[in-house]
Amino acid sequence: MNTAQATPALSGTTRLYAIIGDPIAQVGSPRLFNAAFRARGIDAVLVAMHVAPSDLGGMIAIFRAMKNFDGLIVTVPHKIQVAGMIDTLGGNAARLGAVNTIRKLPDGRLLGDNFDGIGFVRGLAGRGIELAGKKVLVIGAGGAGCAVVNAIADQRAARIGVYDIDANRRDELLRSVAAHVPGAHIEASDPVAAGFDVVVNCTSVGMKQGDPLPVDISGLAARTVVADIILKPVRTPLLEAAARLGCITHEGPAMLEGQVDAVMDFFFPTSP
Amino acid sequence: MNTAQATPALSGTTRLYAIIGDPIAQVGSPRLFNAAFRARGIDAVLVAMHVAPSDLGGMIAIFRAMKNFDGLIVTVPHKIQVAGMIDTLGGNAARLGAVNTIRKLPDGRLLGDNFDGIGFVRGLAGRGIELAGKKVLVIGAGGAGCAVVNAIADQRAARIGVYDIDANRRDELLRSVAAHVPGAHIEASDPVAAGFDVVVNCTSVGMKQGDPLPVDISGLAARTVVADIILKPVRTPLLEAAARLGCITHEGPAMLEGQVDAVMDFFFPTSP
Repeated sequence: MNTAQATPALSGTTRLYAIIGDPIAQVGSPRLFNAAFRARGIDAVLVAMHVAPSDLGGMIAIFRAMKNFDGLIVTVPHKIQVAGMIDTLGGNAARLGAVNTIRKLPDGRLLGDNFDGIGFVRGLAGRGIELAGKKVLVIGAGGAGCAVVNAIADQRAARIGVYDIDANRRDELLRSVAAHVPGAHIEASDPVAAGFDVVVNCTSVGMKQGDPLPVDISGLAARTVVADIILKPVRTPLLEAAARLGCITHEGPAMLEGQVDAVMDFFFPTSP
Repeated sequence: MNTAQATPALSGTTRLYAIIGDPIAQVGSPRLFNAAFRARGIDAVLVAMHVAPSDLGGMIAIFRAMKNFDGLIVTVPHKIQVAGMIDTLGGNAARLGAVNTIRKLPDGRLLGDNFDGIGFVRGLAGRGIELAGKKVLVIGAGGAGCAVVNAIADQRAARIGVYDIDANRRDELLRSVAAHVPGAHIEASDPVAAGFDVVVNCTSVGMKQGDPLPVDISGLAARTVVADIILKPVRTPLLEAAARLGCITHEGPAMLEGQVDAVMDFFFPTSP
Protein backbone atom coordinates (compact mmCIF):
# COMPACT_ATOMS: atom_id res chain seq x y z
CA MET A 1 0.00 0.00 0.00
CA ASN A 2 1.40 3.35 -1.04
CA THR A 3 1.06 5.58 2.00
CA ALA A 4 1.95 8.61 -0.09
CA GLN A 5 -1.46 8.37 -1.77
CA ALA A 6 -4.28 10.44 -0.36
CA THR A 7 -6.49 7.33 -0.22
CA PRO A 8 -4.95 3.87 0.19
CA ALA A 9 -5.67 1.53 -2.70
CA LEU A 10 -8.60 -0.80 -2.04
CA SER A 11 -7.89 -4.53 -2.24
CA GLY A 12 -9.43 -7.91 -1.52
CA THR A 13 -8.58 -7.55 2.16
CA THR A 14 -10.28 -4.16 2.60
CA ARG A 15 -13.11 -4.36 5.16
CA LEU A 16 -16.47 -3.01 3.99
CA TYR A 17 -18.70 -0.40 5.66
CA ALA A 18 -21.70 1.39 4.15
CA ILE A 19 -24.24 4.11 4.75
CA ILE A 20 -27.76 3.07 3.75
CA GLY A 21 -30.52 5.59 3.02
CA ASP A 22 -33.14 6.72 0.52
CA PRO A 23 -32.29 9.20 -0.97
CA ILE A 24 -28.52 8.83 -0.67
CA ALA A 25 -26.83 11.49 -2.83
CA GLN A 26 -26.77 14.05 0.00
CA VAL A 27 -24.85 12.00 2.58
CA GLY A 28 -21.51 13.17 3.90
CA SER A 29 -20.45 9.96 5.66
CA PRO A 30 -18.29 8.49 2.85
CA ARG A 31 -16.02 11.53 2.88
CA LEU A 32 -15.89 11.77 6.70
CA PHE A 33 -15.37 8.08 7.49
CA ASN A 34 -12.90 7.30 4.71
CA ALA A 35 -10.82 10.20 6.03
CA ALA A 36 -11.12 8.72 9.55
CA PHE A 37 -10.09 5.22 8.34
CA ARG A 38 -7.10 6.80 6.60
CA ALA A 39 -6.14 8.82 9.66
CA ARG A 40 -6.18 5.68 11.82
CA GLY A 41 -4.42 3.52 9.22
CA ILE A 42 -7.39 1.14 8.92
CA ASP A 43 -7.80 -0.92 5.70
CA ALA A 44 -11.53 -0.25 5.30
CA VAL A 45 -13.86 1.67 3.01
CA LEU A 46 -17.32 3.19 3.55
CA VAL A 47 -19.57 3.41 0.50
CA ALA A 48 -23.04 4.86 -0.06
CA MET A 49 -25.80 2.30 -0.72
CA HIS A 50 -29.16 3.51 -2.01
CA VAL A 51 -31.65 1.18 -0.29
CA ALA A 52 -35.44 1.62 -0.52
CA PRO A 53 -37.60 0.79 2.54
CA SER A 54 -38.95 -2.35 0.85
CA ASP A 55 -35.39 -3.67 0.46
CA LEU A 56 -34.22 -2.98 4.02
CA GLY A 57 -34.81 -6.55 5.20
CA GLY A 58 -32.83 -8.00 2.28
CA MET A 59 -30.08 -5.46 2.91
CA ILE A 60 -29.72 -6.43 6.57
CA ALA A 61 -29.73 -10.12 5.59
CA ILE A 62 -26.86 -9.69 3.14
CA PHE A 63 -25.03 -7.47 5.63
CA ARG A 64 -25.28 -10.31 8.15
CA ALA A 65 -24.11 -12.86 5.61
CA MET A 66 -21.23 -11.04 3.96
CA LYS A 67 -18.06 -12.03 5.76
CA ASN A 68 -16.05 -8.85 5.13
CA PHE A 69 -18.93 -6.39 5.75
CA ASP A 70 -18.45 -5.04 9.27
CA GLY A 71 -20.60 -1.96 9.87
CA LEU A 72 -23.46 0.26 8.74
CA ILE A 73 -24.41 3.88 9.13
CA VAL A 74 -28.21 4.13 8.87
CA THR A 75 -29.97 7.27 7.72
CA VAL A 76 -33.46 8.42 6.72
CA PRO A 77 -35.90 6.66 6.38
CA HIS A 78 -34.50 3.47 7.95
CA LYS A 79 -33.51 4.42 11.52
CA ILE A 80 -36.67 3.20 13.26
CA GLN A 81 -37.48 0.19 11.06
CA VAL A 82 -33.94 -1.21 11.32
CA ALA A 83 -34.10 -1.21 15.13
CA GLY A 84 -36.45 -4.18 14.90
CA MET A 85 -34.21 -6.13 12.53
CA ILE A 86 -31.02 -6.39 14.59
CA ASP A 87 -30.04 -8.32 17.72
CA THR A 88 -28.97 -5.86 20.40
CA LEU A 89 -29.57 -2.16 21.02
CA GLY A 90 -27.20 0.12 22.89
CA GLY A 91 -28.51 2.59 25.46
CA ASN A 92 -29.22 5.54 23.21
CA ALA A 93 -30.80 3.39 20.50
CA ALA A 94 -33.10 1.70 23.02
CA ARG A 95 -34.12 5.04 24.53
CA LEU A 96 -34.84 6.59 21.11
CA GLY A 97 -36.20 3.48 19.38
CA ALA A 98 -33.95 4.45 16.51
CA VAL A 99 -30.58 3.20 15.27
CA ASN A 100 -28.08 5.14 13.21
CA THR A 101 -25.03 2.87 13.49
CA ILE A 102 -24.67 -0.94 13.45
CA ARG A 103 -21.61 -3.03 14.18
CA LYS A 104 -21.26 -6.74 13.50
CA LEU A 105 -19.94 -8.37 16.66
CA PRO A 106 -17.29 -11.13 16.51
CA ASP A 107 -20.01 -13.76 17.03
CA GLY A 108 -22.06 -12.36 14.12
CA ARG A 109 -24.77 -10.60 16.16
CA LEU A 110 -25.66 -7.06 15.09
CA LEU A 111 -25.35 -4.31 17.72
CA GLY A 112 -27.01 -0.97 16.99
CA ASP A 113 -26.74 2.37 18.70
CA ASN A 114 -27.55 6.01 18.01
CA PHE A 115 -24.94 8.77 17.92
CA ASP A 116 -27.01 11.60 16.42
CA GLY A 117 -27.56 13.45 19.70
CA ILE A 118 -23.97 12.97 20.84
CA GLY A 119 -22.86 14.23 17.44
CA PHE A 120 -24.84 17.42 17.87
CA VAL A 121 -23.46 18.03 21.36
CA ARG A 122 -19.88 17.29 20.29
CA GLY A 123 -20.24 19.53 17.26
CA LEU A 124 -21.14 22.46 19.51
CA ALA A 125 -18.47 21.55 22.06
CA GLY A 126 -15.90 21.56 19.28
CA ARG A 127 -16.60 25.29 18.93
CA GLY A 128 -16.40 25.84 22.68
CA ILE A 129 -20.18 25.96 23.15
CA GLU A 130 -21.29 23.97 26.23
CA LEU A 131 -24.96 23.26 26.99
CA ALA A 132 -24.76 22.76 30.75
CA GLY A 133 -26.75 25.50 32.48
CA LYS A 134 -28.14 26.88 29.23
CA LYS A 135 -31.75 27.57 28.26
CA VAL A 136 -32.28 25.65 25.02
CA LEU A 137 -35.21 25.71 22.58
CA VAL A 138 -35.57 22.75 20.20
CA ILE A 139 -37.97 22.97 17.26
CA GLY A 140 -39.16 19.57 16.10
CA ALA A 141 -39.77 16.33 18.03
CA GLY A 142 -39.22 13.86 15.17
CA GLY A 143 -36.31 11.44 15.02
CA ALA A 144 -33.60 14.08 14.96
CA GLY A 145 -35.36 16.24 17.54
CA CYS A 146 -35.69 13.32 19.97
CA ALA A 147 -32.01 12.45 19.63
CA VAL A 148 -30.93 16.06 20.11
CA VAL A 149 -33.27 16.76 23.05
CA ASN A 150 -32.19 13.62 24.90
CA ALA A 151 -28.53 14.50 24.45
CA ILE A 152 -29.13 18.08 25.59
CA ALA A 153 -30.92 16.78 28.69
CA ASP A 154 -27.92 14.54 29.42
CA GLN A 155 -25.75 17.67 29.34
CA ARG A 156 -27.78 19.16 32.23
CA ALA A 157 -29.19 22.13 30.39
CA ALA A 158 -30.92 24.57 32.79
CA ARG A 159 -34.15 24.44 30.81
CA ILE A 160 -35.28 22.79 27.58
CA GLY A 161 -38.25 24.04 25.62
CA VAL A 162 -39.67 21.81 22.90
CA TYR A 163 -41.96 22.84 20.07
CA ASP A 164 -43.60 20.54 17.56
CA ILE A 165 -46.56 21.13 15.30
CA ASP A 166 -47.82 17.73 16.54
CA ALA A 167 -48.59 18.16 20.26
CA ASN A 168 -48.86 14.41 20.86
CA ARG A 169 -45.40 13.79 19.44
CA ARG A 170 -44.06 16.66 21.55
CA ASP A 171 -45.65 15.31 24.73
CA GLU A 172 -44.29 11.82 24.12
CA LEU A 173 -40.80 13.27 23.93
CA LEU A 174 -41.32 15.30 27.12
CA ARG A 175 -42.48 12.19 28.99
CA SER A 176 -39.61 10.07 27.65
CA VAL A 177 -36.95 12.58 28.67
CA ALA A 178 -38.52 13.03 32.10
CA ALA A 179 -38.39 9.27 32.57
CA HIS A 180 -34.79 8.86 31.44
CA VAL A 181 -33.21 12.01 32.89
CA PRO A 182 -34.57 12.60 36.41
CA GLY A 183 -34.48 16.27 37.28
CA ALA A 184 -34.44 17.48 33.67
CA HIS A 185 -36.20 20.81 33.27
CA ILE A 186 -38.12 20.23 30.08
CA GLU A 187 -41.44 21.69 28.93
CA ALA A 188 -43.57 22.51 25.93
CA SER A 189 -42.76 25.83 24.30
CA ASP A 190 -44.03 28.13 21.56
CA PRO A 191 -41.79 28.51 18.50
CA VAL A 192 -40.48 31.82 19.81
CA ALA A 193 -36.77 32.13 20.52
CA ALA A 194 -36.74 35.18 22.81
CA GLY A 195 -35.28 34.34 26.23
CA PHE A 196 -33.33 31.23 25.14
CA ASP A 197 -29.53 30.96 24.98
CA VAL A 198 -29.48 28.28 22.28
CA VAL A 199 -32.06 27.63 19.55
CA VAL A 200 -31.96 24.44 17.46
CA ASN A 201 -34.03 23.67 14.38
CA CYS A 202 -34.62 19.91 14.11
CA THR A 203 -37.34 20.12 11.46
CA SER A 204 -36.87 19.99 7.70
CA VAL A 205 -38.29 23.51 7.35
CA GLY A 206 -35.62 25.40 5.42
CA MET A 207 -34.64 22.63 3.01
CA LYS A 208 -36.97 23.86 0.27
CA GLN A 209 -36.74 27.28 -1.29
CA GLY A 210 -39.52 29.54 -0.04
CA ASP A 211 -39.89 27.73 3.31
CA PRO A 212 -40.85 30.07 6.20
CA LEU A 213 -38.53 30.30 9.21
CA PRO A 214 -39.28 27.40 11.62
CA VAL A 215 -39.04 29.69 14.66
CA ASP A 216 -39.60 33.39 15.43
CA ILE A 217 -36.16 34.85 16.15
CA SER A 218 -37.08 38.52 16.07
CA GLY A 219 -35.20 40.55 18.62
CA LEU A 220 -32.81 37.74 19.64
CA ALA A 221 -29.74 38.88 21.54
CA ALA A 222 -26.47 38.90 19.61
CA ARG A 223 -24.84 36.26 21.81
CA THR A 224 -27.57 33.66 21.16
CA VAL A 225 -26.54 30.46 19.43
CA VAL A 226 -28.80 29.48 16.52
CA ALA A 227 -28.20 25.98 15.18
CA ASP A 228 -29.73 24.04 12.30
CA ILE A 229 -29.38 20.34 11.56
CA ILE A 230 -30.29 20.67 7.86
CA LEU A 231 -27.40 19.53 5.65
CA LYS A 232 -28.47 21.12 2.38
CA PRO A 233 -28.48 24.06 2.13
CA VAL A 234 -25.72 24.48 4.69
CA ARG A 235 -26.74 28.12 5.12
CA THR A 236 -30.48 27.85 5.74
CA PRO A 237 -32.75 30.92 5.78
CA LEU A 238 -32.85 30.56 9.60
CA LEU A 239 -29.07 30.75 9.88
CA GLU A 240 -28.91 33.67 7.47
CA ALA A 241 -31.55 35.58 9.43
CA ALA A 242 -29.78 34.79 12.72
CA ALA A 243 -26.47 35.98 11.29
CA ARG A 244 -28.09 39.29 10.36
CA LEU A 245 -29.08 39.68 14.03
CA GLY A 246 -25.49 39.07 15.10
CA CYS A 247 -26.20 35.59 16.52
CA ILE A 248 -23.64 32.77 16.58
CA THR A 249 -24.76 30.36 13.82
CA HIS A 250 -24.06 26.63 13.80
CA GLU A 251 -24.52 24.59 10.62
CA GLY A 252 -26.00 21.12 10.11
CA PRO A 253 -22.89 19.23 8.97
CA ALA A 254 -21.28 19.83 12.41
CA MET A 255 -23.64 17.17 13.81
CA LEU A 256 -22.18 14.57 11.42
CA GLU A 257 -18.61 15.68 11.98
CA GLY A 258 -19.18 15.63 15.74
CA GLN A 259 -20.17 11.97 15.76
CA VAL A 260 -17.36 10.57 13.62
CA ASP A 261 -15.00 9.99 16.56
CA ALA A 262 -17.78 8.44 18.65
CA VAL A 263 -18.80 6.11 15.81
CA MET A 264 -15.18 5.16 15.09
CA ASP A 265 -14.76 4.18 18.74
CA PHE A 266 -17.97 2.11 18.39
CA PHE A 267 -16.77 0.42 15.18
CA PHE A 268 -13.27 -0.26 16.57
CA PRO A 269 -13.56 -0.72 20.34
CA THR A 270 -10.22 -0.92 22.14
CA SER A 271 -11.68 -3.39 24.61
CA PRO A 272 -14.29 -5.82 23.25
CA MET B 1 -13.70 16.81 -5.73
CA ASN B 2 -10.00 17.40 -5.31
CA THR B 3 -8.41 16.18 -8.53
CA ALA B 4 -4.94 16.50 -7.00
CA GLN B 5 -5.70 13.50 -4.77
CA ALA B 6 -4.58 10.09 -5.94
CA THR B 7 -8.10 8.74 -5.38
CA PRO B 8 -11.14 11.03 -5.59
CA ALA B 9 -13.07 11.26 -2.34
CA LEU B 10 -16.13 9.00 -2.22
CA SER B 11 -19.49 10.69 -1.69
CA GLY B 12 -23.21 10.04 -1.74
CA THR B 13 -23.23 10.30 -5.54
CA THR B 14 -20.48 7.72 -6.10
CA ARG B 15 -21.78 4.74 -8.13
CA LEU B 16 -21.13 1.33 -6.63
CA TYR B 17 -19.44 -1.71 -8.23
CA ALA B 18 -18.25 -4.86 -6.49
CA ILE B 19 -16.37 -8.09 -7.00
CA ILE B 20 -18.07 -11.07 -5.35
CA GLY B 21 -16.23 -14.29 -4.51
CA ASP B 22 -15.39 -16.79 -1.78
CA PRO B 23 -12.59 -16.45 -0.73
CA ILE B 24 -12.06 -12.79 -1.59
CA ALA B 25 -8.77 -11.62 -0.06
CA GLN B 26 -6.75 -12.59 -3.14
CA VAL B 27 -8.64 -10.52 -5.74
CA GLY B 28 -6.90 -7.80 -7.69
CA SER B 29 -9.99 -6.14 -9.20
CA PRO B 30 -10.42 -3.33 -6.60
CA ARG B 31 -6.94 -1.99 -7.35
CA LEU B 32 -7.29 -2.38 -11.14
CA PHE B 33 -10.81 -0.99 -11.55
CA ASN B 34 -10.50 1.91 -9.13
CA ALA B 35 -7.43 2.97 -11.11
CA ALA B 36 -9.48 2.64 -14.32
CA PHE B 37 -12.37 4.72 -12.89
CA ARG B 38 -9.86 7.37 -11.85
CA ALA B 39 -8.16 7.38 -15.25
CA ARG B 40 -11.52 7.90 -16.98
CA GLY B 41 -12.75 10.48 -14.45
CA ILE B 42 -15.71 8.31 -13.40
CA ASP B 43 -17.27 8.86 -9.93
CA ALA B 44 -17.48 5.16 -9.01
CA VAL B 45 -15.85 2.70 -6.64
CA LEU B 46 -15.35 -1.07 -6.81
CA VAL B 47 -15.21 -2.93 -3.49
CA ALA B 48 -14.60 -6.56 -2.57
CA MET B 49 -17.61 -8.45 -1.18
CA HIS B 50 -17.09 -11.83 0.46
CA VAL B 51 -20.21 -13.78 -0.54
CA ALA B 52 -20.68 -17.49 0.23
CA PRO B 53 -22.49 -19.71 -2.34
CA SER B 54 -25.56 -19.96 -0.07
CA ASP B 55 -25.89 -16.16 -0.11
CA LEU B 56 -25.49 -15.66 -3.86
CA GLY B 57 -29.24 -15.39 -4.49
CA GLY B 58 -29.68 -12.77 -1.78
CA MET B 59 -26.68 -10.90 -3.12
CA ILE B 60 -28.09 -10.75 -6.65
CA ALA B 61 -31.47 -9.64 -5.25
CA ILE B 62 -29.96 -6.71 -3.35
CA PHE B 63 -27.77 -5.86 -6.35
CA ARG B 64 -30.95 -5.65 -8.44
CA ALA B 65 -32.70 -3.53 -5.82
CA MET B 66 -29.98 -1.06 -4.87
CA LYS B 67 -30.41 2.01 -7.02
CA ASN B 68 -26.78 3.15 -7.10
CA PHE B 69 -25.25 -0.35 -7.56
CA ASP B 70 -24.39 -0.67 -11.24
CA GLY B 71 -22.08 -3.61 -11.87
CA LEU B 72 -20.48 -6.81 -10.58
CA ILE B 73 -17.32 -8.74 -11.25
CA VAL B 74 -17.97 -12.40 -10.42
CA THR B 75 -15.23 -14.78 -9.41
CA VAL B 76 -14.84 -18.29 -8.00
CA PRO B 77 -17.07 -20.11 -7.07
CA HIS B 78 -20.02 -18.12 -8.45
CA LYS B 79 -19.43 -17.86 -12.21
CA ILE B 80 -21.64 -20.77 -13.27
CA GLN B 81 -24.37 -20.48 -10.62
CA VAL B 82 -24.90 -16.75 -11.27
CA ALA B 83 -25.52 -17.37 -14.97
CA GLY B 84 -28.92 -18.81 -14.02
CA MET B 85 -29.85 -15.84 -11.83
CA ILE B 86 -29.63 -12.99 -14.32
CA ASP B 87 -31.71 -11.92 -17.30
CA THR B 88 -29.52 -11.85 -20.39
CA LEU B 89 -26.24 -13.51 -21.36
CA GLY B 90 -23.77 -12.06 -23.85
CA GLY B 91 -22.13 -14.29 -26.45
CA ASN B 92 -19.13 -15.50 -24.49
CA ALA B 93 -21.15 -16.10 -21.31
CA ALA B 94 -23.74 -18.13 -23.22
CA ARG B 95 -21.03 -20.19 -24.95
CA LEU B 96 -19.20 -20.89 -21.68
CA GLY B 97 -22.24 -21.14 -19.39
CA ALA B 98 -20.30 -18.90 -17.03
CA VAL B 99 -20.46 -15.19 -16.20
CA ASN B 100 -17.65 -13.08 -14.82
CA THR B 101 -19.12 -9.59 -15.30
CA ILE B 102 -22.66 -8.22 -14.86
CA ARG B 103 -24.03 -4.83 -15.82
CA LYS B 104 -27.39 -3.40 -14.74
CA LEU B 105 -29.12 -2.11 -17.86
CA PRO B 106 -31.07 1.18 -17.79
CA ASP B 107 -34.35 -0.80 -17.55
CA GLY B 108 -33.05 -2.77 -14.56
CA ARG B 109 -32.35 -6.07 -16.32
CA LEU B 110 -29.03 -7.73 -15.57
CA LEU B 111 -26.72 -8.48 -18.53
CA GLY B 112 -23.83 -10.87 -17.95
CA ASP B 113 -20.84 -11.71 -20.07
CA ASN B 114 -17.45 -13.37 -19.71
CA PHE B 115 -14.16 -11.62 -20.37
CA ASP B 116 -11.74 -14.17 -18.91
CA GLY B 117 -10.62 -15.58 -22.25
CA ILE B 118 -10.36 -12.16 -23.87
CA GLY B 119 -8.35 -11.03 -20.86
CA PHE B 120 -5.87 -13.84 -21.35
CA VAL B 121 -5.48 -13.12 -25.06
CA ARG B 122 -5.13 -9.36 -24.51
CA GLY B 123 -2.60 -9.94 -21.72
CA LEU B 124 -0.39 -11.89 -24.12
CA ALA B 125 -0.98 -9.40 -26.96
CA GLY B 126 0.12 -6.59 -24.63
CA ARG B 127 3.55 -8.24 -24.62
CA GLY B 128 3.56 -8.67 -28.40
CA ILE B 129 2.65 -12.38 -28.25
CA GLU B 130 0.01 -13.27 -30.84
CA LEU B 131 -1.72 -16.66 -30.92
CA ALA B 132 -2.73 -16.79 -34.59
CA GLY B 133 -0.88 -19.64 -36.30
CA LYS B 134 0.61 -20.97 -33.04
CA LYS B 135 0.50 -24.47 -31.60
CA VAL B 136 -0.96 -24.06 -28.12
CA LEU B 137 -1.27 -26.59 -25.28
CA VAL B 138 -3.82 -25.83 -22.54
CA ILE B 139 -3.74 -27.81 -19.29
CA GLY B 140 -7.15 -27.87 -17.58
CA ALA B 141 -10.67 -27.82 -19.02
CA GLY B 142 -12.46 -26.28 -16.01
CA GLY B 143 -14.02 -22.82 -16.04
CA ALA B 144 -10.81 -20.94 -16.71
CA GLY B 145 -9.59 -23.52 -19.21
CA CYS B 146 -12.84 -23.35 -21.20
CA ALA B 147 -12.68 -19.55 -21.35
CA VAL B 148 -9.03 -19.56 -22.42
CA VAL B 149 -9.41 -22.34 -24.99
CA ASN B 150 -12.42 -20.71 -26.63
CA ALA B 151 -10.60 -17.37 -26.87
CA ILE B 152 -7.49 -19.06 -28.30
CA ALA B 153 -9.67 -20.80 -30.91
CA ASP B 154 -11.17 -17.43 -31.83
CA GLN B 155 -7.61 -16.19 -32.45
CA ARG B 156 -7.15 -18.88 -35.13
CA ALA B 157 -4.38 -20.82 -33.47
CA ALA B 158 -2.85 -23.40 -35.84
CA ARG B 159 -3.48 -26.22 -33.37
CA ILE B 160 -4.85 -26.45 -29.83
CA GLY B 161 -4.08 -29.39 -27.57
CA VAL B 162 -6.16 -29.81 -24.43
CA TYR B 163 -5.31 -31.94 -21.41
CA ASP B 164 -7.55 -32.56 -18.42
CA ILE B 165 -7.39 -35.27 -15.80
CA ASP B 166 -11.14 -35.71 -16.43
CA ALA B 167 -11.48 -37.01 -19.99
CA ASN B 168 -15.23 -36.33 -20.13
CA ARG B 169 -14.74 -32.69 -19.21
CA ARG B 170 -11.99 -32.43 -21.82
CA ASP B 171 -14.15 -33.98 -24.54
CA GLU B 172 -17.05 -31.66 -23.74
CA LEU B 173 -14.76 -28.69 -24.27
CA LEU B 174 -13.45 -30.14 -27.55
CA ARG B 175 -17.00 -30.63 -28.84
CA SER B 176 -18.09 -27.16 -27.74
CA VAL B 177 -15.18 -25.42 -29.46
CA ALA B 178 -15.67 -27.46 -32.62
CA ALA B 179 -19.33 -26.38 -32.66
CA HIS B 180 -18.64 -22.69 -32.07
CA VAL B 181 -15.46 -22.20 -34.10
CA PRO B 182 -15.78 -24.10 -37.38
CA GLY B 183 -12.38 -25.11 -38.69
CA ALA B 184 -10.66 -24.95 -35.30
CA HIS B 185 -7.86 -27.51 -35.03
CA ILE B 186 -8.40 -28.80 -31.52
CA GLU B 187 -7.65 -32.20 -30.04
CA ALA B 188 -6.94 -34.09 -26.86
CA SER B 189 -3.33 -34.02 -25.76
CA ASP B 190 -1.05 -35.50 -23.13
CA PRO B 191 0.36 -33.10 -20.53
CA VAL B 192 3.66 -32.90 -22.42
CA ALA B 193 4.76 -29.54 -23.74
CA ALA B 194 7.34 -30.63 -26.34
CA GLY B 195 6.39 -29.44 -29.82
CA PHE B 196 4.09 -26.60 -28.73
CA ASP B 197 4.81 -22.87 -29.13
CA VAL B 198 2.68 -21.76 -26.18
CA VAL B 199 1.82 -23.72 -23.01
CA VAL B 200 -0.89 -22.49 -20.62
CA ASN B 201 -1.68 -23.87 -17.16
CA CYS B 202 -5.36 -23.38 -16.39
CA THR B 203 -5.45 -25.71 -13.36
CA SER B 204 -4.89 -24.75 -9.75
CA VAL B 205 -1.84 -27.03 -9.57
CA GLY B 206 0.94 -24.75 -8.34
CA MET B 207 -1.08 -22.75 -5.81
CA LYS B 208 -0.08 -24.99 -2.90
CA GLN B 209 3.47 -25.49 -1.78
CA GLY B 210 4.75 -28.92 -2.84
CA ASP B 211 2.42 -29.21 -5.86
CA PRO B 212 3.97 -31.09 -8.80
CA LEU B 213 4.31 -29.33 -12.15
CA PRO B 214 0.99 -29.56 -14.05
CA VAL B 215 2.78 -30.33 -17.34
CA ASP B 216 6.03 -31.95 -18.44
CA ILE B 217 8.17 -29.16 -19.86
CA SER B 218 11.45 -31.04 -20.06
CA GLY B 219 13.46 -30.13 -23.13
CA LEU B 220 11.23 -27.19 -24.15
CA ALA B 221 12.83 -24.82 -26.65
CA ALA B 222 13.95 -21.46 -25.28
CA ARG B 223 11.52 -19.48 -27.41
CA THR B 224 8.47 -21.29 -26.02
CA VAL B 225 5.92 -19.20 -24.11
CA VAL B 226 4.86 -20.72 -20.78
CA ALA B 227 1.87 -19.05 -19.14
CA ASP B 228 0.08 -19.61 -15.85
CA ILE B 229 -3.26 -18.18 -14.74
CA ILE B 230 -2.59 -18.69 -11.01
CA LEU B 231 -2.61 -15.33 -9.18
CA LYS B 232 -0.85 -16.38 -5.98
CA PRO B 233 1.97 -17.15 -6.07
CA VAL B 234 2.68 -14.96 -9.08
CA ARG B 235 5.83 -16.98 -9.76
CA THR B 236 4.53 -20.55 -9.75
CA PRO B 237 6.88 -23.56 -9.78
CA LEU B 238 5.92 -24.02 -13.45
CA LEU B 239 7.03 -20.50 -14.37
CA GLU B 240 10.23 -20.86 -12.34
CA ALA B 241 11.05 -24.13 -14.08
CA ALA B 242 10.25 -22.64 -17.50
CA ALA B 243 12.45 -19.62 -16.77
CA ARG B 244 15.35 -21.98 -15.97
CA LEU B 245 14.91 -23.47 -19.47
CA GLY B 246 15.06 -19.99 -21.01
CA CYS B 247 11.35 -19.92 -21.90
CA ILE B 248 9.28 -16.73 -22.03
CA THR B 249 7.14 -16.79 -18.88
CA HIS B 250 3.75 -15.09 -18.55
CA GLU B 251 2.17 -14.58 -15.11
CA GLY B 252 -1.44 -14.97 -13.97
CA PRO B 253 -2.28 -11.34 -13.14
CA ALA B 254 -1.83 -10.40 -16.83
CA MET B 255 -5.19 -12.13 -17.52
CA LEU B 256 -6.91 -9.72 -15.12
CA GLU B 257 -5.06 -6.67 -16.36
CA GLY B 258 -5.84 -7.68 -19.94
CA GLN B 259 -9.58 -7.65 -19.36
CA VAL B 260 -9.89 -4.32 -17.56
CA ASP B 261 -10.31 -2.28 -20.74
CA ALA B 262 -12.81 -4.77 -22.16
CA VAL B 263 -14.86 -4.77 -18.93
CA MET B 264 -14.74 -0.97 -18.68
CA ASP B 265 -16.16 -0.76 -22.22
CA PHE B 266 -18.88 -3.23 -21.12
CA PHE B 267 -19.70 -1.23 -17.95
CA PHE B 268 -19.70 2.11 -19.80
CA PRO B 269 -20.78 1.49 -23.40
CA THR B 270 -20.43 4.51 -25.67
CA SER B 271 -23.57 3.50 -27.55
CA PRO B 272 -26.30 1.83 -25.48
